Amino acid sequence: MGALIGQMMQMPLLISSLVVHAARHAGDTEVVSKRVEGDLHRTTWAEIELRSRKLAQAFGRLGCEAGARIGTLAWNGYRHLEIYYGASGSERVCHTINPRLFPEQIAWIANDAADEVLCFDLNFLPLVEKLQAELGTVKHFVLMTDRAHMPATSSIAGLLCYEELIDAENGDWQWPQFDENTASSICYTSGTTGHPKGAVYSHRSSLLHAYAAALPDAMNCSARDVILPVVPMFHVNAWGIPYSAAMVGAKLVMPGPHLDGKSLFELFESEKVTFSAGVPTVWLGLLTYMKANALKFSSFKRTVIGGSACPPAMMKTLQEDFGVEVIHAWGMTELSPLGTLSKLMAKHESLPHEAQQRLLEKQGKVIYGIDMAIIDDDGKRLPHDGVAFGNLVVRGSWVIDRYLGNPASPLVSVDGEPGWFPTGDVATIDADGYMQITDRSKDVIKSGGEWISSIDLENIAMAHPAVHEAAVISCHHPKWDERPLLVAVLKPGMNVSGPELLAFFDGRIAKWQIPDDVVFVAEIPHTATGKIQKLKLREQFKGHRLPA
Amino acid sequence: MGALIGQMMQMPLLISSLVVHAARHAGDTEVVSKRVEGDLHRTTWAEIELRSRKLAQAFGRLGCEAGARIGTLAWNGYRHLEIYYGASGSERVCHTINPRLFPEQIAWIANDAADEVLCFDLNFLPLVEKLQAELGTVKHFVLMTDRAHMPATSSIAGLLCYEELIDAENGDWQWPQFDENTASSICYTSGTTGHPKGAVYSHRSSLLHAYAAALPDAMNCSARDVILPVVPMFHVNAWGIPYSAAMVGAKLVMPGPHLDGKSLFELFESEKVTFSAGVPTVWLGLLTYMKANALKFSSFKRTVIGGSACPPAMMKTLQEDFGVEVIHAWGMTELSPLGTLSKLMAKHESLPHEAQQRLLEKQGKVIYGIDMAIIDDDGKRLPHDGVAFGNLVVRGSWVIDRYLGNPASPLVSVDGEPGWFPTGDVATIDADGYMQITDRSKDVIKSGGEWISSIDLENIAMAHPAVHEAAVISCHHPKWDERPLLVAVLKPGMNVSGPELLAFFDGRIAKWQIPDDVVFVAEIPHTATGKIQKLKLREQFKGHRLPA
Repeated sequence: MGALIGQMMQMPLLISSLVVHAARHAGDTEVVSKRVEGDLHRTTWAEIELRSRKLAQAFGRLGCEAGARIGTLAWNGYRHLEIYYGASGSERVCHTINPRLFPEQIAWIANDAADEVLCFDLNFLPLVEKLQAELGTVKHFVLMTDRAHMPATSSIAGLLCYEELIDAENGDWQWPQFDENTASSICYTSGTTGHPKGAVYSHRSSLLHAYAAALPDAMNCSARDVILPVVPMFHVNAWGIPYSAAMVGAKLVMPGPHLDGKSLFELFESEKVTFSAGVPTVWLGLLTYMKANALKFSSFKRTVIGGSACPPAMMKTLQEDFGVEVIHAWGMTELSPLGTLSKLMAKHESLPHEAQQRLLEKQGKVIYGIDMAIIDDDGKRLPHDGVAFGNLVVRGSWVIDRYLGNPASPLVSVDGEPGWFPTGDVATIDADGYMQITDRSKDVIKSGGEWISSIDLENIAMAHPAVHEAAVISCHHPKWDERPLLVAVLKPGMNVSGPELLAFFDGRIAKWQIPDDVVFVAEIPHTATGKIQKLKLREQFKGHRLPA
Repeated sequence: MGALIGQMMQMPLLISSLVVHAARHAGDTEVVSKRVEGDLHRTTWAEIELRSRKLAQAFGRLGCEAGARIGTLAWNGYRHLEIYYGASGSERVCHTINPRLFPEQIAWIANDAADEVLCFDLNFLPLVEKLQAELGTVKHFVLMTDRAHMPATSSIAGLLCYEELIDAENGDWQWPQFDENTASSICYTSGTTGHPKGAVYSHRSSLLHAYAAALPDAMNCSARDVILPVVPMFHVNAWGIPYSAAMVGAKLVMPGPHLDGKSLFELFESEKVTFSAGVPTVWLGLLTYMKANALKFSSFKRTVIGGSACPPAMMKTLQEDFGVEVIHAWGMTELSPLGTLSKLMAKHESLPHEAQQRLLEKQGKVIYGIDMAIIDDDGKRLPHDGVAFGNLVVRGSWVIDRYLGNPASPLVSVDGEPGWFPTGDVATIDADGYMQITDRSKDVIKSGGEWISSIDLENIAMAHPAVHEAAVISCHHPKWDERPLLVAVLKPGMNVSGPELLAFFDGRIAKWQIPDDVVFVAEIPHTATGKIQKLKLREQFKGHRLPA
């Protein structure tokens, strides 16, 4: 008889429909922005929608066709939000560039994406003036400000003024309908090796991610929320908040470039922020400022923390001292970015507080839409028992299939089934699906077929009172193939011997996982973003001979 | 340059992925069912997934191909849930039939859908035995019970036992991947005129509905919830709860046929239910029982009430006396069914309680994914000002395109743009998108180009102490085309004159909307489901001459 086809309306999942929804159902709900220009700017979802349409008209007037890449170098603010909707909604592609990268990386990325337009905040004018000669594909440079703030002169010929572009249009233009698999935006990974790689999101993937991200077990976004994304809009679309906020009609508060403790606290309080999201570092600054001034939050209820593991002590402080629920999350550029978030299940409500805390410190459970597995080096599934750890692989509607301009598939097979994205992380998954990152794949130590987490060993070494910093790397061993070597920097004026430090591991981890040796160094090499360069360390200690 | 295509994984949105997700991430979370057999049955999402797979195998063994319709006559229970997943997940179509319909309607619907298999609960055996001769397309009759409960003899030749079908399979079978636009299930509307019509949902429409239904501003479902759907699974898929519950890994409590106050209360308490959903009538029974026995809920936090308008007094009682948040909702079979739900926005939090209450008494705002408008009889948009009322039309990913077996499009145009589904309701929409039903399209009174809500007039008449029941219908008027006529039934022993009753409207509604005349009758005609038969009333009073 053959499959029956459903008889439902076919509506493509398009990003423009989010801002139209927000304008219609939360038209006077505010979008408040701390501007680069210094002041606090207030607008509404209705205005954002109208101006996004005018911006789309302006891109058309500039000669940008469907598929044209619109690059941005900008902080979180309403103009950046208008570019999100104006570019993607008009079948063009919003390409957010991380302005914190080295200038040559910025140029490389803009060229790789073939950006036609580059929109940038006022404070990035000197950077763009310096880079313009290298930006071969960019035809139009747009300064995201009004006429009053335009420079008297600039080395950029024909520098355009954002507000003038908007003002020249009448808004008499309708959002086009097109295939939901069309590219909506591009974000580049900040790879530690080689060139950055572009992830090309589609309207469909962004919309499904927006639904999932707003669910109660994820960011839990509603029309009663005031959301301040500390995570930048150039960092995986601010974790999708610009989309989920429009979906639910929440008020948005954009901090601009002012991410110091004082600026953030004042904005949280004056705008009555209920929800935020960001990396651990930013909370450190905020909490330090608040403690120093004996301040409390009056409206802030919960935050998602991701990007890197949230230290348990920070979770505890936020929850117990400041009354803020911390939702620990894991994701990556290739996942749009949300993969897992840690929330309790009904059966955990009767657990003692400490046991609940240990669950919440994990990276958490996948949201529906993402499928996850851990595999060994032969691609075989490992058990979800919370103990076995293996290479973390994922698949789902908002996971990349390949990178921009690179036809080679990065995907791997699981038990012979192709189509899984290897995250490069090593993790455990328990029977309820709670995932915990234990290492990066390239850093795990493979000893006689068993894996040892370098992070676990580093955390123990760092707990020793004499140790300032520690890194654990694999070292060749004739019998076990690899064994852990501890590289440690001592605190000024402190002292501990190698055997003493290794004895410190006794009882804190299984005996066979204890490092075979320690070397003390004056300094451990770091990347520009502060990560330990383990590759460099491994090269440095390639010839190190472990004790028998 | 042409549009750029996103480079994301292409994963079809399939219903089977929901139960796989639940089994993997909430495997030991319970599904508890009050069985027709009389006892309380406990299983888990992991078991449900396994048995759904076995059921899919069994359908294959019975010779059901892709597209085969699997009919059900069943209460809310785990076996019904397994049929949802086993049928839809194997590319067959789950067709839930309302057992409360007249037997001839049931037969007509099963034939119209061409059901190949009919699965039914034990207490429907006599009904099916009586109907079997008329069920021309049904090849297999499956009694949803175990061997011990099978009848010694039955007039149904080859009557199959559900548990035996399951037990004969090994579960060594994988959920197939196919086009997400494939039909997943069929529900028939209970039309007041003509034959019922079939809505054919797709996997895509059901999945998008499941995401939207679980959002904080909709049903707000999480892994911490224990959900008891009072709304039957034969009534628009229990409003999607079987899907949303699996999506978030919530515990499900299925009440079977026992919907009286005592049975429900005991189940709410013993299983620690946090969330429920149902029509107003069922809450009436529950609250009456609780009041009579001075009982309180210990875990129940919120409920969605829809199907028909929730009386404000019931909302107040549930919220103030029983501490249960009431979420007023509107939907219909053609909308899968959720269209709007009433929740407050951030800006309403400072409103006085009474003003909040008036908003919550409306049918609420659309969830993202549904688009809504009100139009006049010429298809022109009317303003969203909370005052203008017009024909309510909708469109979206979970709205039907046409009915089963009927190529004619039911859709209409809005300002010349085709593709909107006419709901048959008349409503207002305010500037924030809060919708309020004011009438059914066919019942509204069109007086000199202005519309008058029959429901508003009935509510006023019913507030008069002498009035037992009231219906307002349109009556031909030579000048105004239509004018309202009030038909009233007096309470036993009470009396009021026509002019006195009309005077009661003064100050309660605009003068020009007050009915022109009153007729007192002994009884107002009702349908089998208790609705006033206004068509019959209009025929009865066709010749009525209004006073000049």
